[in-house]
Amino acid sequence: MHKQKTVLRKKISVPLSTEPENPRRIIVIMAGGRGERFWPQSRTARPKHLLPIVGDETLLNQTVKRLENIVPLEDIFIITNALQENAVRESCTSIRKENIIIEPVGRDTGAAVALAGVIAKRVHAGATLALLPADHVIKDKLGFKKTIEAAFEAAESGDYLVTVSIPPTHPETGFGYIERGTVHNDYGKAPVYNVKRFVEKPELKKAKEYVKTGTFYWNGGMFVWSVKSIENALKLHAPELHKCFTKLEKDLEGDKSFQDVITRHYGSLPKLSIDYAVMEKAKNVLTVPALFDWDDVGSWTALMRHFPHDKNGNVVRGNAIVEAGKNNIVMSNGGHLVTVLGVEGLVVVHTKDATLVCTMEKAQEIKTLLKRIAEHPEGKSTL
Amino acid sequence: MHKQKTVLRKKISVPLSTEPENPRRIIVIMAGGRGERFWPQSRTARPKHLLPIVGDETLLNQTVKRLENIVPLEDIFIITNALQENAVRESCTSIRKENIIIEPVGRDTGAAVALAGVIAKRVHAGATLALLPADHVIKDKLGFKKTIEAAFEAAESGDYLVTVSIPPTHPETGFGYIERGTVHNDYGKAPVYNVKRFVEKPELKKAKEYVKTGTFYWNGGMFVWSVKSIENALKLHAPELHKCFTKLEKDLEGDKSFQDVITRHYGSLPKLSIDYAVMEKAKNVLTVPALFDWDDVGSWTALMRHFPHDKNGNVVRGNAIVEAGKNNIVMSNGGHLVTVLGVEGLVVVHTKDATLVCTMEKAQEIKTLLKRIAEHPEGKSTL
Repeated sequence: MHKQKTVLRKKISVPLSTEPENPRRIIVIMAGGRGERFWPQSRTARPKHLLPIVGDETLLNQTVKRLENIVPLEDIFIITNALQENAVRESCTSIRKENIIIEPVGRDTGAAVALAGVIAKRVHAGATLALLPADHVIKDKLGFKKTIEAAFEAAESGDYLVTVSIPPTHPETGFGYIERGTVHNDYGKAPVYNVKRFVEKPELKKAKEYVKTGTFYWNGGMFVWSVKSIENALKLHAPELHKCFTKLEKDLEGDKSFQDVITRHYGSLPKLSIDYAVMEKAKNVLTVPALFDWDDVGSWTALMRHFPHDKNGNVVRGNAIVEAGKNNIVMSNGGHLVTVLGVEGLVVVHTKDATLVCTMEKAQEIKTLLKRIAEHPEGKSTL
Repeated sequence: MHKQKTVLRKKISVPLSTEPENPRRIIVIMAGGRGERFWPQSRTARPKHLLPIVGDETLLNQTVKRLENIVPLEDIFIITNALQENAVRESCTSIRKENIIIEPVGRDTGAAVALAGVIAKRVHAGATLALLPADHVIKDKLGFKKTIEAAFEAAESGDYLVTVSIPPTHPETGFGYIERGTVHNDYGKAPVYNVKRFVEKPELKKAKEYVKTGTFYWNGGMFVWSVKSIENALKLHAPELHKCFTKLEKDLEGDKSFQDVITRHYGSLPKLSIDYAVMEKAKNVLTVPALFDWDDVGSWTALMRHFPHDKNGNVVRGNAIVEAGKNNIVMSNGGHLVTVLGVEGLVVVHTKDATLVCTMEKAQEIKTLLKRIAEHPEGKSTL
């Protein structure tokens, strides 16, 4: 059935912008994050998306550049927090000052979704908006554009909550999964499926089953919907968040500063994830499996995939020497010389004020270490 | 037989200084060393003996303090090199300026023995001198004094080359061994043995055999002899070194500066170890097995014995945290925070300009790494 549609669209060949609805598309980049996984390289004030951790530019800037061909720059917004504000502004000089919105306190993805909805509605009440993370590594720009545009079209076609999901490459237990149902449409670009259900991070056994089916995808935290659809969904599934949405909206009537209003109200928003508050409950969810490569680079080990290795499998960056060692990742910032002798499978990261030495396996459990550091008299300043 | 002698001495109970020969005792501390084994803590200009690596004072200063009750301070000399001169003078304020002699270039222990002989002869032609390393950890001062005094007495009793040797605690392959022969005497303080032979660093199998016999000792590099005996021995076994001895001596006649003469001649001395040049050949060698604890603290692993461990066997010094790790040694100098997560048996040492991460096993092979560092554009300055 979706094949027919493809043919139809190709025949008509009408560019989207001239379609009757002439929808306004807004993209909101969620650039929060606490900088835990890449400590000591990343810090609370400079988490992963504000580092050139892969490539020469920050991941946030790479994200912005990926979006420039999808919507005009003035329709790209960034939600970040006060600690990261300066670094975000320095990193993304192409984004208008007023398009960078500061969360005064962290209130999870639910609140960010409500805020993004208000932002989009102020641009155009009939707008459709995409919410995208700032810190993913995606190299195939064209595949990305195709997928996001298919998601926009799906969101514009009716009262749907559209997610972009990731075809799994292995039974990852660190992500939530999305089970697809029947084919919904393809909008000439990418197949769009009805979603059966959202599932939380599974155990390994379950994850293996999911991957085998071919109908499960990773939940990549990318959402596309119209202002109207997300308002409806909040009203229906998360009335608390909906109340805040309308409160923010109402308080913005007149000449008040957008940022001032947010600062006044944001603290009273409930802390809920959008998955829990809405996606797991809604019946009108669609998904577009990504037509692009994707890596959330969630840990030091994941990072190894993105750098050249020496003949012993070591990734060596900066002023560092590995002797008689293999499969290590060794990084030094600045002039300090880091030397590694006879070790295997270690992460060694040196920064100006802190050094991390840990096994690849334990790199996933860095939060335990960060708790110890927070309690250490000299540790807090390094977080 | 040596029991009789003990009784005899005890009965006479004449203090040594009033004995007919009234021997003058000189101690020369050999404070050279290249600072390789404890890199990056130790450096060429500040090797192990110039660090408070065990205890609060430098090992050199601890050595001086151990000797203060054996000979007067003015009879303690230190041979060091130009790179270390300042640090030696700062470390040993109790030693007279003119008693610190600078080797202009390294010429191995043979040359140092000749130089020490010349130094002692200038004090008193009938002097006996002890040559002792600067970087050993010895806690039992009384046992040390007894042993050294027995060695002095043995050296004063005739034409002997006396070594202080170490009863082995394990089949160490990193040391040379000394096989004792019959009992020579005990001078009321410690048994003194005739030496059968010097053997070079053995393979493990040999080392095990040696330790089993009870007649093998570690060669600790501690020597005691009269000026006359060492002159004789050099003449007989190492004529090249003897020639230098007499050349230095002759050039010092008149009013020339001691240091100037050394600087002029030292470069032409042959590079020979005293073990190879003399000890392995001489027939008149005696040994006094140490009556004291002894540790040459030859590596990071050896150092672990001297520090308190946490409940997981970690030695943590300075600004450092170990989480979910065991049997590690982790050291940070200054304010830098070193964190270690989930590793076992590692040496992690952070200094201002260089960091080392290595396994306990490979800590012995640090020289391989240092070669790489010497070739590295940013490495040389850290040596």
